[in-house]
Amino acid sequence: MAYLAYSELTDSVFVINLPYIKFGLGASKDVGYEARRLGMTSVLLVVGRRLAETKLAEQVRGSLESQGIKVEVFTDVHVEPDDEAIVQGFSKVRDLRLDGFVALGGGSTIDTAKLLNLLYSYPADLMDYVNRPVGKGMSPPGPLKPMIAIPTTAGTGAENTNVAVLDIKRLHVKTGVSNQYLRPSVAIVDPLTTVSMPPMVTASTGLDVLNHAIESITAHPYTARPAVSPAERPVYAGSTPIGDLFLPVITWAAKYIRRAYADPYDIEARYYMQLGANLAGLGFGHAGVHVPHAMAYPIAGMVRDWHPPDYDFGYPIVPHGISTAIPAAYAFRFLAPYNEDKFRAVARALGLDDSGTPREVGERIFDFYLKLLEDLHVPTNLKEIGFSRSDLDGLVEGAWAQQRLLVLSPKAISKDDLRRLYSEMLE
Amino acid sequence: MAYLAYSELTDSVFVINLPYIKFGLGASKDVGYEARRLGMTSVLLVVGRRLAETKLAEQVRGSLESQGIKVEVFTDVHVEPDDEAIVQGFSKVRDLRLDGFVALGGGSTIDTAKLLNLLYSYPADLMDYVNRPVGKGMSPPGPLKPMIAIPTTAGTGAENTNVAVLDIKRLHVKTGVSNQYLRPSVAIVDPLTTVSMPPMVTASTGLDVLNHAIESITAHPYTARPAVSPAERPVYAGSTPIGDLFLPVITWAAKYIRRAYADPYDIEARYYMQLGANLAGLGFGHAGVHVPHAMAYPIAGMVRDWHPPDYDFGYPIVPHGISTAIPAAYAFRFLAPYNEDKFRAVARALGLDDSGTPREVGERIFDFYLKLLEDLHVPTNLKEIGFSRSDLDGLVEGAWAQQRLLVLSPKAISKDDLRRLYSEMLE
Ligand SMILES: [Fe+2]
Ligand SMILES: [Fe+2]
Repeated sequence: MAYLAYSELTDSVFVINLPYIKFGLGASKDVGYEARRLGMTSVLLVVGRRLAETKLAEQVRGSLESQGIKVEVFTDVHVEPDDEAIVQGFSKVRDLRLDGFVALGGGSTIDTAKLLNLLYSYPADLMDYVNRPVGKGMSPPGPLKPMIAIPTTAGTGAENTNVAVLDIKRLHVKTGVSNQYLRPSVAIVDPLTTVSMPPMVTASTGLDVLNHAIESITAHPYTARPAVSPAERPVYAGSTPIGDLFLPVITWAAKYIRRAYADPYDIEARYYMQLGANLAGLGFGHAGVHVPHAMAYPIAGMVRDWHPPDYDFGYPIVPHGISTAIPAAYAFRFLAPYNEDKFRAVARALGLDDSGTPREVGERIFDFYLKLLEDLHVPTNLKEIGFSRSDLDGLVEGAWAQQRLLVLSPKAISKDDLRRLYSEMLE
Repeated sequence: MAYLAYSELTDSVFVINLPYIKFGLGASKDVGYEARRLGMTSVLLVVGRRLAETKLAEQVRGSLESQGIKVEVFTDVHVEPDDEAIVQGFSKVRDLRLDGFVALGGGSTIDTAKLLNLLYSYPADLMDYVNRPVGKGMSPPGPLKPMIAIPTTAGTGAENTNVAVLDIKRLHVKTGVSNQYLRPSVAIVDPLTTVSMPPMVTASTGLDVLNHAIESITAHPYTARPAVSPAERPVYAGSTPIGDLFLPVITWAAKYIRRAYADPYDIEARYYMQLGANLAGLGFGHAGVHVPHAMAYPIAGMVRDWHPPDYDFGYPIVPHGISTAIPAAYAFRFLAPYNEDKFRAVARALGLDDSGTPREVGERIFDFYLKLLEDLHVPTNLKEIGFSRSDLDGLVEGAWAQQRLLVLSPKAISKDDLRRLYSEMLE
């Protein structure tokens, strides 16, 4: 029983602190009530330009106004926002009188609202707040204005996290802002808001959900880290018996991802994919993710010429869920023998036979992933998205830099391990 | 799929809001760190007289003092506190300079600390805060002083709730104080603190855990209540797909309760019973409990002459977990046909065969309970604790008064249903 390990040399304690979540079909209609409960009288509604034109945005605005709340609308949302866009956006809202923020959209919209709220509540140079070593990593002196997040995708769980992901334009680097005050006060999670996601976005975000769930449950246990003082305990605990409760999310994702992809209005599928996204977001915010997410960074960063359907931004992109799902197939097969019990539980949750050697269990999970990716019309290796063996060194170095995630792997990962996995993905 | 019911007439939304929990073997050693993180410099340590003499209390005090925090100790804790004891206790601490509270003990100790904190933070007549209709049901105007709860039993989950249970002495009534500010800021849950629980306390609190888990999962679904405005939505949601994640708690309780009862130092058993208590407390604080808890009230209130071992208070008592477990056996058998899928899942979680008719599943759960109660040397019917058929009317009326809980039953409950169940328990 790894969780019961108890010695002076290893840690034996973890923390979990979950947010206020309002979930259900039609929950977004409650936004006005929740805003008033939080004391809001004049809010900034952050919503992407296209979504701002929809009936959903109109309903959200109406719900706020019906409570006597003044609504200013901000639509300058960039997909994967950079620092310049945020600073420019802030210049447009800094003179407004606001006492709350409402974000309606995907991860980029929610993160934009988090950063605008941070700058509005405690104006400073954005780089003061950006994570070290890129920025100064400063924390604001106290709570921000209250914020409500209404996610309209079913993926990242940004509505529950205290992080905002950010590109720093002049440095060409992706980093973030992360502090305890960034998390929205309330997450309103309404599966009906996700029916407008196009198929490939449904596939990618859904794969991200599956990866979050499997990685957080198979991460090394919280007792597998050295003893530390409470202040030094890392944000990501590793796997814990509370994180493991989210195991059913794996079953939901396996069962419903194809249905949500095939039929956007399959409400049962949307319900469990959106609930799963939210819970897997909690699970990975608590336990952490490991090898597949580490290997995804350079895949997303080094892409040269893949333009998947539904992501027509005019530049090449590997959507996040796809960049994690390809390495997930290969990494889980590789890791299964090193965390036997957990990967058997994952196999059961996926509806697979969990008998045989750990290696056989790993092969079954690999086959499951490949078949799933094919059914979703997602590439199953890196050649299909324009990578070749000449990219191998760059990929290995890029993943190796993600030590923060690699330390959560159930097996200590070497550069050779990464090289072997990327090689398999390039065959 | 009951959870997917969606109409204008029924509700389709629920809320979950979980606290900051620090869990693990030895977690109580972090109390000083957590207190300082919360800004405490001078605290009241609320701890029962007997526990105050132990090494555990010494460690907690030492951890606080090592962070430069001044510690005043309050040991006037009554089992099941009444209003007079609380008011008298408050008179002893009102002139101290305090900026935080730490509770170390069982539910009565944690509830005492909640009430002292309430009166200290916003002095008023205690009855102003007591729930209607007994008191005025007023809410304090804002947050209380920060509070840390360290439970040393594995039962009620008082460390997570925003309720304090209270007897009103001159009215001979059990009621409570309940408002959003009462919940401790931090729960530190350390299974090592529970090894001193005597066997019958372990049995009773453990049975309460099992009942909380099964009742909250088999409660009627959140979609089975009428449509209401968000402000009217009841605190107890009924069963939800998030509450259902706590299903493994049933397995832990079934597996470990006998071991914890037989050997107080079985750390694996203590670990899962304490974790299960905490999570089942969250589950029931979220979803609610139903028929067994409603039927337990008059059993506890009308007891005349049962003095179980380890509860030698000089007056008759039916410990809470036992008063719920006896009716649970009979009520689950009765209810199984009315929530077939959930009771099959309960049977599986208990390690039982889940096949056959719903009635057969109910019989198997009944047999499981009776055998468990026998193994724990707990009575399996009301005759053994001094009740007779002449008590029937009183028992039925007492349970009938608990409509707040009965509405959560998966089957609408009539007085005849209650009479039939109590009759079976008196045969
Ligand atoms: Fe991800
Ligand atoms: Fe209880």
